[in-house]
Amino acid sequence: MANISIIGAGSVVFSTSFIRDLCVTKSLWGSKITLMDISKDRLSMIHNLAVRYKKETKADLKIETTTNRREALEDADFVLCTVKVGGYQPMEMERKIAERYGYYRGIGDRVCDYYGGFGAYHQLKFFLDLARDMEDTCPDAWLIETANPVFEGTTLISRETRIKVIGVCHGHLGYEKIAETLGLSLEDVSVEIAGFNHCVWMTRFLYRGRNAYPLLDEWIEKKAEKYWKSEEFLKGLPWETEQMSPAAVDMYKQFGLFPIGDTIRSVSPWWYHVDLETKKRWFGPTGGFDSEIGWSIYLKHREKRLRKMQDLYKDSSAPLTREFPPVMSGEQHIPLIDSIANDREAILQLNIPNRGVISGIPDDVVVEIPTVVSGRGVQGIHIGELPKRLMLYVMIPRMLRMERILQAFKDGDRKSLVLMLMDDPRTESYEKTYALVEELLAQPWNTEAADHYR
Amino acid sequence: MANISIIGAGSVVFSTSFIRDLCVTKSLWGSKITLMDISKDRLSMIHNLAVRYKKETKADLKIETTTNRREALEDADFVLCTVKVGGYQPMEMERKIAERYGYYRGIGDRVCDYYGGFGAYHQLKFFLDLARDMEDTCPDAWLIETANPVFEGTTLISRETRIKVIGVCHGHLGYEKIAETLGLSLEDVSVEIAGFNHCVWMTRFLYRGRNAYPLLDEWIEKKAEKYWKSEEFLKGLPWETEQMSPAAVDMYKQFGLFPIGDTIRSVSPWWYHVDLETKKRWFGPTGGFDSEIGWSIYLKHREKRLRKMQDLYKDSSAPLTREFPPVMSGEQHIPLIDSIANDREAILQLNIPNRGVISGIPDDVVVEIPTVVSGRGVQGIHIGELPKRLMLYVMIPRMLRMERILQAFKDGDRKSLVLMLMDDPRTESYEKTYALVEELLAQPWNTEAADHYR
Repeated sequence: MANISIIGAGSVVFSTSFIRDLCVTKSLWGSKITLMDISKDRLSMIHNLAVRYKKETKADLKIETTTNRREALEDADFVLCTVKVGGYQPMEMERKIAERYGYYRGIGDRVCDYYGGFGAYHQLKFFLDLARDMEDTCPDAWLIETANPVFEGTTLISRETRIKVIGVCHGHLGYEKIAETLGLSLEDVSVEIAGFNHCVWMTRFLYRGRNAYPLLDEWIEKKAEKYWKSEEFLKGLPWETEQMSPAAVDMYKQFGLFPIGDTIRSVSPWWYHVDLETKKRWFGPTGGFDSEIGWSIYLKHREKRLRKMQDLYKDSSAPLTREFPPVMSGEQHIPLIDSIANDREAILQLNIPNRGVISGIPDDVVVEIPTVVSGRGVQGIHIGELPKRLMLYVMIPRMLRMERILQAFKDGDRKSLVLMLMDDPRTESYEKTYALVEELLAQPWNTEAADHYR
Repeated sequence: MANISIIGAGSVVFSTSFIRDLCVTKSLWGSKITLMDISKDRLSMIHNLAVRYKKETKADLKIETTTNRREALEDADFVLCTVKVGGYQPMEMERKIAERYGYYRGIGDRVCDYYGGFGAYHQLKFFLDLARDMEDTCPDAWLIETANPVFEGTTLISRETRIKVIGVCHGHLGYEKIAETLGLSLEDVSVEIAGFNHCVWMTRFLYRGRNAYPLLDEWIEKKAEKYWKSEEFLKGLPWETEQMSPAAVDMYKQFGLFPIGDTIRSVSPWWYHVDLETKKRWFGPTGGFDSEIGWSIYLKHREKRLRKMQDLYKDSSAPLTREFPPVMSGEQHIPLIDSIANDREAILQLNIPNRGVISGIPDDVVVEIPTVVSGRGVQGIHIGELPKRLMLYVMIPRMLRMERILQAFKDGDRKSLVLMLMDDPRTESYEKTYALVEELLAQPWNTEAADHYR
C-alpha cells in the first residue's frame, strides 16, 4: 500500500501501463493513485479509463485526480513524472530553424538531450521545480523520473536537491530483440547492461549460463547480411529494426560491446547521420528513428494510440481488458514501487548515481545499471571497467555533453550554449552558430529561456 | 653536487642554457655532467662549447660525453631529457600528406601532441624506454622531461614506471609579456598559473599585491585595438606577439582566465585556425606560430641559432660569455636540480601528477602548477576550482585527447587513431580518414609505428 502520484498523467502510454500494472499487482492494492495533469480533458479521459479498468479487474485502488501539482504531492510516497512540457511542436519548429543553418534534422536531431527544446531548458526547469516542491511537501517520497532527458534530469535532481530520484526507461529491453533474432528463447538468456540512459551497452550476454557473444559474432559473420535483406528488417518499424541494424553491428565493432535500445540512435557516431541516404545505409529503409521518415512514423503511431484511447473513452461499454490484457506491461515503474513499498527484493535496470559502480565515472553522475531493489532502497550491482575505447569515444564525451548542458542551465550561460554547438561536426562558423542560438532564443516559446540564458 | 645526465644533449638551445646555468650555479659546482647524444658530431660540438664556457667562467664541473644511453644513466641523480626523435622532417612530410586529405596545416597543426609524428609514437616510445632503462640503472634518479609532448609524456611515465618524473617548460613566462604590455614592472607583478602543459591559465594576477585583472580588462577595452595596429604587434615574431593577440583576448572572454604562452596556439578554438586568412585575423600578420608563415620563421630561427653555434665551435678563440653572458637563462631545469640536490626551497612552475591540486582532474593526470621544491621533493601548491566553462570546453577535452593518445599508444590501437581524427572538425568522412591513417603508417619512417598500431 502506498500513495502514488502520477505527474503528467495525460501521457497516455505511460498512464495506461501504470494503471494496468497497478491493477495486476495485488500487493499494491489499497493504494491511493493521484492522477495530476494541467489538461482537464486529458485528465478526465485517463481517469475514466483508469476507473473502468479497475472495475473490470476488480482491483482495490483509490483513484483521484487533480490539476494542482502541490495537492498531488501531499502525502505522496512515490511520485511518477512523465511530463513533456509544451509537447513536440516547439522541437519541430526549432528543428526547421536549425536546418536553415546547415544542421540536418536540427541540433537535437538524435534526441539524446533535446527533449524540452533547446538546451533541454523546459524539461530541466520543470524537473527542478517539481523536486523542490517535493522537498517542501513530501521530502521522503521517491521521485521516479521517466520523462526525458533522464540522464541530465536525474543527475541534476540528485545533485541539486535532497529528493531520492530514480530514472526509469525501457530501452534496455532491446536485448530481447537480439535474443529473438539469434533464435534464443528468452528464458535461457540473461544479460547485464550498463552505461548512461540512452547510452547502454551489453556488458554480459549469457545463453544457458555461457557467454553468448560468440553466437552474436557468428550471426554477424554469417547471417547479418541476409537479415538486412529480409522483409522483417526492410519493412519493420525503426524502433524495432535499429537493434540489429548495420549501425548497431558497426558500433559493436568500434567500441567492443553491443549497444542496446536507444543507444543506437542517440550515441551512434555522427558520420552515420550526415544525410538521409547515409542514415538509410546504417539504419535501414526508414533511415532510423530520428530521420524524417522514422520520426514521422513515430508521430503517426502516437496519434493513432491517442485516437484509440479517445475511442475507448467515448465508448464506455468497450471492455478495456480486451485491448489491454491484465498482465504486467513490462515497464519497471510499478514493480519498483512494489519492491520498495513491500520490501520485495527485485533486480531492475535503473538510473541512479554511480557511486563506484562503473569505474572512471564520478560518483555524482547518474548511470543506468542493474540494481537490487527492496525496502532498503536501490543498490547498484557492481560493473567495474568498460572497454577503454568505449569510455574514451562514447561514455566520456556523452558525460561531457551532460555536464555542459547542466552547467549552461545552472549558470544561465548563453556562451556555453554557443560553445556546445561549436563542437557539432556540422557547425560552419562561430558567427553562424551564434546567430542560430540568438534566433532560437527569440522564438515566442523561448521567452523564459531567453531570459534565463544571459 | 650531483650527477647530471643530459639525454639528447645535441639539442643546442637547451644544452646551451643548461651549461650556462650550471656554470653560474656555484652550489652545484663539483657536479659531474654527462652529455649523451647519438650524433657524435653534435656531441663534439656541445662538449667543446661546454668545456670552453666552463673555463671562461672558472666553473668547477666535470664534463663527460657518451653515445651510450645506459652508460649515461649509471650513477645519475638527475636525467634531463631533451630528445626529439627523428627531427622535424617526418612531421613536415606527414603534414603534406594530411593536407591532401583536407587537413589544413596537417593533423598535428597546433603541435599540441604531435611532436614525435603521428600519435606522438616516436617520442612516447623513447620516453618509456628511457624511464625503463632508468628503473634498471638509476631507479632513484629524477627524470626531468622537457621534450614534448610534456603532458602526454610525463603522464605516461608517471603511470607506467616507478621513476620520479617532472615536466619542465618555459611557456608560463608568457606572463612577462602581459606585464610589459601593460607597462607594469616585473618586480611588482606576481602570478599564479595552472593547467596542463601548453594549456595554462593565469589563475591570479597581482600588481603590488592587488588584483591586476582589472588593469588587463582596461587595456583590452581601451588599448588593445591600438596595440594590434602597432609596429610592435604587426612586425613582431609570432611567439612574442601571440600572448597579447586578439586570439588570447577572445579566449579570455570565452573561458574566463587569460591563457598563457603556448596555450594560445595549442588549445585555441578550431575556428581560429580554418585558413591562413582567419589565422591572421586572430594571431596577426604571421598567422601565429603554427601557420605556414609563423612556422617557417621558427624553422629559420632554429637554423640560424644552430649555425651560430657551429661558428662559435669552429672559432675556438671566440669568447662564449660575450654571446651568452654568465647569468641564469630563465630556464627552470638547473634551479630545480639545485633546489632538490641542495635542499634549497624554491617555487617553480612544474608538471607533476595532480593529486588534488586542481579540482575535477584525476590524481594520475599530470598538471602544470606552481610547486614548492626542496630536498623533500616537489609539492604542488593548491589551486582548487577553475572556471566551469574553461573546464568543460578546454581542460577536459584536452585531457580526453591526452587519454586517447595514451590509450592508442599503450594498446597499439589503430582503431583509436582513426576515431581520434573523426572528432577533428575538418574530417569529412570515415573512409577518407581511415585512408589517411593507413597512408601515414605506410611511410618509411613509420614502419615501427605501423607494426605497433594494429
